[in-house]
Order: sequence, then C-alpha cells, then structure tokens
Amino acid sequence: MLAYEQLLAEGFVTGRTGSGTYVSPGLGSGRRTTSADSAKLRLSRFGSATAAAGEKLDFSRPRQAPLLYDFAYRRAPVQEFPFETWRRILVRRARKASLRELDYGPPAGSLALREAITAHLQRSRAVVCDAGQVIIVNGSQQALDLIARVLIERGDRVVIEDPQYQGAHQIFQAAGARLYPVPVDRDGLDPAKLPRTGRLAFVTPSHQFPTGAVLPLARRLELLQWAKRVNAVVIEDDYDGEFRYEGHPVESMQGLDTEGRVIYVGTFSRTIFPALRIGYMIAPKRLVAALTAAKWFSDRHTPTLEQETLAEFISMGAYERHLRRARKANALRRRALLKAIERYLGNRAEITGDGAGAHIVLWPRTSDFEEAIIARAASDGVGVYPVSPYFLKRNKRIGLMLGYSRMNESEIREGVRRLGEAIG
Amino acid sequence: MLAYEQLLAEGFVTGRTGSGTYVSPGLGSGRRTTSADSAKLRLSRFGSATAAAGEKLDFSRPRQAPLLYDFAYRRAPVQEFPFETWRRILVRRARKASLRELDYGPPAGSLALREAITAHLQRSRAVVCDAGQVIIVNGSQQALDLIARVLIERGDRVVIEDPQYQGAHQIFQAAGARLYPVPVDRDGLDPAKLPRTGRLAFVTPSHQFPTGAVLPLARRLELLQWAKRVNAVVIEDDYDGEFRYEGHPVESMQGLDTEGRVIYVGTFSRTIFPALRIGYMIAPKRLVAALTAAKWFSDRHTPTLEQETLAEFISMGAYERHLRRARKANALRRRALLKAIERYLGNRAEITGDGAGAHIVLWPRTSDFEEAIIARAASDGVGVYPVSPYFLKRNKRIGLMLGYSRMNESEIREGVRRLGEAIG
Repeated sequence: MLAYEQLLAEGFVTGRTGSGTYVSPGLGSGRRTTSADSAKLRLSRFGSATAAAGEKLDFSRPRQAPLLYDFAYRRAPVQEFPFETWRRILVRRARKASLRELDYGPPAGSLALREAITAHLQRSRAVVCDAGQVIIVNGSQQALDLIARVLIERGDRVVIEDPQYQGAHQIFQAAGARLYPVPVDRDGLDPAKLPRTGRLAFVTPSHQFPTGAVLPLARRLELLQWAKRVNAVVIEDDYDGEFRYEGHPVESMQGLDTEGRVIYVGTFSRTIFPALRIGYMIAPKRLVAALTAAKWFSDRHTPTLEQETLAEFISMGAYERHLRRARKANALRRRALLKAIERYLGNRAEITGDGAGAHIVLWPRTSDFEEAIIARAASDGVGVYPVSPYFLKRNKRIGLMLGYSRMNESEIREGVRRLGEAIG
Repeated sequence: MLAYEQLLAEGFVTGRTGSGTYVSPGLGSGRRTTSADSAKLRLSRFGSATAAAGEKLDFSRPRQAPLLYDFAYRRAPVQEFPFETWRRILVRRARKASLRELDYGPPAGSLALREAITAHLQRSRAVVCDAGQVIIVNGSQQALDLIARVLIERGDRVVIEDPQYQGAHQIFQAAGARLYPVPVDRDGLDPAKLPRTGRLAFVTPSHQFPTGAVLPLARRLELLQWAKRVNAVVIEDDYDGEFRYEGHPVESMQGLDTEGRVIYVGTFSRTIFPALRIGYMIAPKRLVAALTAAKWFSDRHTPTLEQETLAEFISMGAYERHLRRARKANALRRRALLKAIERYLGNRAEITGDGAGAHIVLWPRTSDFEEAIIARAASDGVGVYPVSPYFLKRNKRIGLMLGYSRMNESEIREGVRRLGEAIG
C-alpha cells in the first residue's frame, strides 16, 4: 500500500523520470505494439507476489522537490568516506587484474575479502568464525533471500520483529512463510511473546529497525534458548552495529551461539555506499555448503573487482579508520540532534533509538495527524518520514524517523527548529 | 556426479587452494570448535538441492597443471578486449560518481545501460523491444533464476534441450520443475518431439550449448506455435549469438514472437569478461513488473559503477568495434582449427557446431574410451573436455569440446596435431 513511499524513502527509487518503466521515445518502434501482447501467462505464487509488488514500482509519479533539511535514513555517511583512497585501490586493481580475476570467481567470494571480513568482525563485533564460514553476497537483501530459499518450506513459521523492515518480511512471505510478528518494546523484541514453534527468527539486535532499540544480553540469551527449544535458526542482521554511542557494545548473538543456529548478516551499504552491492553472511558450518551453492545457483558470484578493492581497503586499515571517523562525526550529529530536540520540542516529544545507529524515532505528543505534520514540515523544507509503514499490526502512536548521517550540525539544528514549528 | 569437473571446466572454480571451504590458519580460534555445532537443521527442498550441489563444491582437490594447449570453452576473447578504453571509462565514472550513483539504483538497472542494450540489440540481433522491457541482472544465470521463480510452480513441466548446460536445468529443477529433455540433432531441438503440455521451454537457438547447432527458422516458428498451443513461455538464451561465421543470421525468436511469450536472455560474460557479472533479459511487457520486483526482492540491483561504465562503452561504439575485432579473430582461429582437424584427423572425426560461437564439438570415430583420450591429450599438454556430462539421457558417442577463443592460430594447430596423436 505504501510501497512507493517506502521505495522513495529508502532510496532505491531515485524518482528519476522513467527509470522504471519508461518507454524511450524513438526506441521500440518495432512491429509489435503494446496491445499486441496477447499471451495470458500464469505466474507462480512467488511470481504473483512479485507482480503485486512490481505494479507499485511506479516511477511515473513526480518526485517531491529536494528538501533543504532532509532527515533521510538508511544513508551511508559519504561525507566521511575516503573516496580518493577507494578509487586509488580500485584503479590499481582494475589495471593489474589478472586473467584469473576476469574469469569466474569462487561462489562464496574472494578469499582475501572473506579473510579481511573475518579479521574485522573478530576485532570489532565479537563474531566467532573462520573465513570458510563467510559467504559474500550482493548486500544483506541477497543474504535474506538465499537463507529464506534454503530454509523455508511453504507454510513454515518465521518470527519477525514488529515493526520491521519490509525488505525482510516481503522476501520471507514470498518464500511461502507464515509470518509471526513479535512486538518490539524499548528493549527490542520481547522473548516472552515468542511462539511455541518456528523455523526461523529474524532480528536486528544492534539497532532494531526501525525503533532503534538495542536488545539486551538477557534477551539475546533467551532468544537463543527459544531457538534451541523449537529447533529454529536465528538471523542476526547487524543493522547499524558499527555505530554505538553509549555503554559497552552487547556481544553479537553469533558470538553467544554455541550450537550453530545463528546466521550473522552484514552489509557495506550503510558504511561505504549502497551502489557497491556487497554484503556477507557468516553461516554455521553445517549450512555453508547449501548457502554457497544457493549463491552459485542464483548468480554465480559477486563481481570480482569490487570484492578485491574492498578486501584491500579493509586489510590496509582504511575501513576501520573510516568507521572511527564516521562514528565520531555521527556522534556529533547525534548530540546536535538531541540538543536541538530538547531545545525546540522539549517535552512535546519522546525519543527512541538514540543509543546506536544513524537515526532516531521521534514520537510527538500530539493529537494531530502524522500526514499533516509531515506535509507541514515538507512545505518548510524539512524531510521526516513516518514509522507507521513498518508496523505489521496497527500502531496507535505517531512516530517520525529522523536520519542524521547526511546532514551537518547546523542543518540538523535548523531542521529540528522548523520541525518543532510543524509539530506545533 | 561430475559437478567438480564441470565447475573446473566452466571456470567458476579456480582451483586455488582453499578458496571454497578453506579454514584460514590463525583465524577462527574462537571458543567454538567445528564439532561444537550440534544443531540439526532442516533444509527446504531447494536447500536440500543446493546442499547436495554444495557438497560437491570441494576445493580441496589439487588442480591439474596448466596446459600448454588448452581448448577451454565458455571463455571471453580477452586478447581482443580494449582494456585501456574500458579502464578509462571506469576510472572517470568512479571519479565523478554523484551521490545518486552511490545510493540505491533502480531495480531494473541504469536507464542509460538499458537504452544502450536496446539500441545494440535492435541493430544486431533483430530484437523488438523498448528500454522498459530490459532488466539488468548479474549474468544470464540470475535471469534464469528469476524467471524460474516467477513462473515455475512445483511440478510444472519445463522443456529443455538434451544435451544442455547444467546451470540452467539445475535451477529449474531446484525450483521444483519436472524436466522434459528434448533431443537435439544437427539442427538443434527437434520440435516434433515436444510434449503435449509445458509451462516453459529453455532453448539456445543461436549456438546450441553444447552441440553448437543453429536452430533454423522453420523450427523457431514451430517452437513458437507449440508455445502458443500449450500456453508456455520460451526462454531464448542467445548464447554466443554474437559470433556467426557463415550465412545470414537467423532472426531471434524474440523478434519472431507476436504474442509476448519469449524472454530473451543475454550476457556480457562471453564478450567482455565473466567477473563483470552483467547480463540482461528482455521481458514481454506483461512480465516486466513481476521480474523487476523479483530482482528487487533478490538483491535490489546490479552494482552501479559497472552498469554506467558498460553503458558508456556501448554507446560510444566501443562494444560493437570490439565485437567486430573479436569476430574476425575468432573466425581466423576457427579456420585454423578446421584446417588442422582436416589435416591431422582427416576422416577420423566429425565436427558439429562450427557455424557460430567460439567452440566446436569433435566426435572422434574410435572405440577408445573418452577418459583415455582426454588423459593422453592432457599428458601431452592439450586440454579437451568431454561433452558427455551435458547429456541428461545417456549419450552413446564420444564427443570432445574444443573452445578456441583464448588461443592463437599456431597454438591451435599444434594442439590439434597433439590431439590427433592422442586419439591415435
């Protein structure tokens, strides 16, 4: 229903006229006309689901004017990214690419990249693995798709957080799963509300998407206990785990897992840039063969040049330097945001999700309509986004997503000031 | 059964020690040990199929020594490829990448690339389409995977050629299809042997893989008639369609289709290089939404930098210049090959597949064993590959695949001379 807004908000629709179903003038003047396609073709159940989603990929709607103070979320902090270093590696790699690097590569990905990711995650995320468990994919979405296909049979129950990122539950649903949404509170998914059976649970414990809750250690252990009891697999999507501002980082569920039940999923879309299309999963050893072959069946492997470039970028320390810089910059942005909210909104709003990540959720105390607030803000040059589309069960509160990784501190202050007026 | 040999022959296993399931020394010395993974997890039917395939992705086997005269097939003619031009575009694109090009791109692919492909295919392959029907994917394998998921329901009948490329039928089978292999003769798939029903037919009419047959116009029309009668979709994989040596090119099935039943699939793996991971499909208008959303569900979109680079490479005419050069070089290689076979093998062997593409099949008239011939050739530095693994039903004849796109003419001559001795 709100697919287009979501596509737009999440950035994978650029809004460029016609980039979706555009018919280029002067092209396609062949013998066939649109109306000549007479075949009535039956789709699979998966195909019916994608067709319904695809009909909403309507690029013909005009894009809103660019906003001066756009609190867009799910954005990489590209201001801090060392593009010069990146390009230098890319160019050198492109120049010296051997015949081996031009031919088909291994389905699980470049060994150099898998080792670099392993070393990085062991240092920074308490992930316990060796390079043989790392499978390189085209972003976390492909990880979820491959996992869904390898584990889910039609009718299987899949536990998801509510609210939740649509990209995840859409793919589980299209794979035939029955979704079991578990409500999220200030501490994330509530283990007391887990069902008696389940094949799979998908969670974002580092910075729950969209609420931003950090799942405490006790809940992580309870969730693992549940998985053991019902014989389920847990997907730990380490969404925004790189950005943590207060307290000690909680151990990754993958690191706590003693049985081989957790698949850890990560992406470089939020720390480098999304158009790179590189993510990874860390699979229990018993699932490595099935997931690697699933990747091979799907598209052979992820492009080699970017993998080799990324491997070198990580190994030489540039990735961790970038993360430190970005973390520092995001921390300053976050402080400016929280201060401005206190100043301009005071006790007229509540905040969740400020402990980590690069967005918060603002919950205004108002009886106004969400759409009205968003429209007033937009007319004053401020972009804020509703949290409501992420809820599977009805949400009674107004919530606004405020991403801050692409703005500077004075833009943040002015944006919040104007938002305060829009909330009224 | 022959998965490893196939992987090796097809080049997506590099044979590099440990690139598959290697456990890096010094890494993974966490708390968990291999034996500690106690969870017994149930896989889906798809997962069971990929697990079985994945177990054969065993990279621990030693790679054979490099061969002096390696008639490897499915290889791009990289000697002719203008890497300097390619890299110049790549570097410029990487340098000037806008924020838009770093964020998520449109799921169907870059509009510039879709328009460039449309214009190219209209000029060279008689394909009738507009840019709105082009969906960019990560090579033709992903096209087949997405089509299978969108169209095939468990138990659906899928017509394939026999012999046939495994990458295609494996994915149909994993999607739950019942395969219906139709024998291929000198003119490709025999329409008289088509079944009474079918959901999908997968064909390689330009240069049947592996036999190299070119499907005549009459058979193309018969196949389309059949598709209409049983309400099936035809996938036309334009394998090696760029390289045609004798006679007029036959019109693409996509161009002959008046009803919107043909999905045309192409790749740049055989004309640029496989590690690029870019292919495309031209879908009937009615399937565009379902297939585009399937791509979006799977992995959002193909990496942007390579798409933009390729778009410029095609638009500026460099791609067609490269194809002309490669066609000319392959034609000389092919002539050297046919002459050498005539000289050194005479009437001791028959040839198929020499009308197009970059490989032939040599059918020696001998009562010797295939394995014995291949082993003798290898011990003399010559790489030839059995056609038998591509047959679904038992094949009675010995056939050897000889690719020639990576060799020069004198290597080809000497390779065939030695092969003649190995055949004896």
